[in-house]
Amino acid sequence: MAHAYEFARPALTVDIVVFALDEEDLQVMLIERDLKPFEGQWALPGGFVRVDETLEEAARRELEEETGLKDIYLEQLYTFGDIKRDPRERVVTVTYYALVNLEGHDVQASTDARNAAWFSMNDLPKLAFDHKTILRAAHERLRGKVRYQPIGFELLPEKFTLRQMQHLYEVILDRELDKRNFRKKVLGMEIVKETKEIEKDVAHRAARLYRFDKRRYDKLTKQGFNFEI
Amino acid sequence: MAHAYEFARPALTVDIVVFALDEEDLQVMLIERDLKPFEGQWALPGGFVRVDETLEEAARRELEEETGLKDIYLEQLYTFGDIKRDPRERVVTVTYYALVNLEGHDVQASTDARNAAWFSMNDLPKLAFDHKTILRAAHERLRGKVRYQPIGFELLPEKFTLRQMQHLYEVILDRELDKRNFRKKVLGMEIVKETKEIEKDVAHRAARLYRFDKRRYDKLTKQGFNFEI
Repeated sequence: MAHAYEFARPALTVDIVVFALDEEDLQVMLIERDLKPFEGQWALPGGFVRVDETLEEAARRELEEETGLKDIYLEQLYTFGDIKRDPRERVVTVTYYALVNLEGHDVQASTDARNAAWFSMNDLPKLAFDHKTILRAAHERLRGKVRYQPIGFELLPEKFTLRQMQHLYEVILDRELDKRNFRKKVLGMEIVKETKEIEKDVAHRAARLYRFDKRRYDKLTKQGFNFEI
Repeated sequence: MAHAYEFARPALTVDIVVFALDEEDLQVMLIERDLKPFEGQWALPGGFVRVDETLEEAARRELEEETGLKDIYLEQLYTFGDIKRDPRERVVTVTYYALVNLEGHDVQASTDARNAAWFSMNDLPKLAFDHKTILRAAHERLRGKVRYQPIGFELLPEKFTLRQMQHLYEVILDRELDKRNFRKKVLGMEIVKETKEIEKDVAHRAARLYRFDKRRYDKLTKQGFNFEI
């Protein structure tokens, strides 16, 4: 195939920020590097884009190869191109972020023998390359989005309590919310529907389980709103 | 310099969507291509990223070379990487969008002899590559943003009438707005300040001129709001 231009060209990678939620914190998936540079340090999953795959295909391939995660919700975040961000040569990286529900995914599996693990956003190790900057941008995007679009579908189990949902928002926004206001707001937006079920495996005071109203959720996602809590 | 990997790598470009506002419509800056492929067709300004410049530097360089525009507000939009988007070879493009005020910029100047011109978003020519898709994404971003952040600073003259501001929102949202509601909303948000001046060069009923309250504007840009009109 003819080359459109013959100048030296930057290398192109994808990197993926995978968020999940546990009982305590927002978690992020990291990979321990077994190659130079930054050997032995933790980094975002990612790798080089092949000429015969789209950017999202590259992101999905790398994610599955390095973490075993597949079929998850991915959204393009931003493209980082600082000249010195990779010590080897000029590398531009297209980043994606993903939200997963810990219950639905086996995240231990890693097919290429590298060490993959979840880390709390409040207790991160030193990260390779500019991955701290990328992670911060992804968290910022998530915090921004939560204010004008409903999110959480991907981070919560199919049925959840309003307490779990409030916890999700608290973790993303990194502050405590007023329980009464939160419930009023969420129920007022009509994005969740009461189910007939209550929590299982709790000693007492089992709470009502809710599910997202997918149609209403999609409508509000498109239309936007302002969730000031 | 050592190469991080030796596989074939995609070429990398930047493309820029420059929006401006005239009396009638939202306008976009296009360049007539003088090279194959798509010779003689209109396209977004843009070009290949050099290894020694950042992505934004590449966007600013190409924009100035092809249109004479400089020192404008640029924001990264999205990175497009469909495999067949360039018939020559695999080319991934990082896109930016910009908002300019027609009064402040001499847009006729083009330093590399190509034809550069403004087109109404309502009357676009056939575009080269996937530039129609990119343009649509930029317009969508602008429409989304207008709902949760104040915009317009970059598209309006320093002092403007509320009619001009309403026109800006109508053009971006592509629908008519109720005058009374619009004014109530804008004045309620306190993002504009009344000046002591009125419009010049109008036959009668000269309207009050306003200016943006920069501090309030920046605060709301960061914090977000919901502008439902």
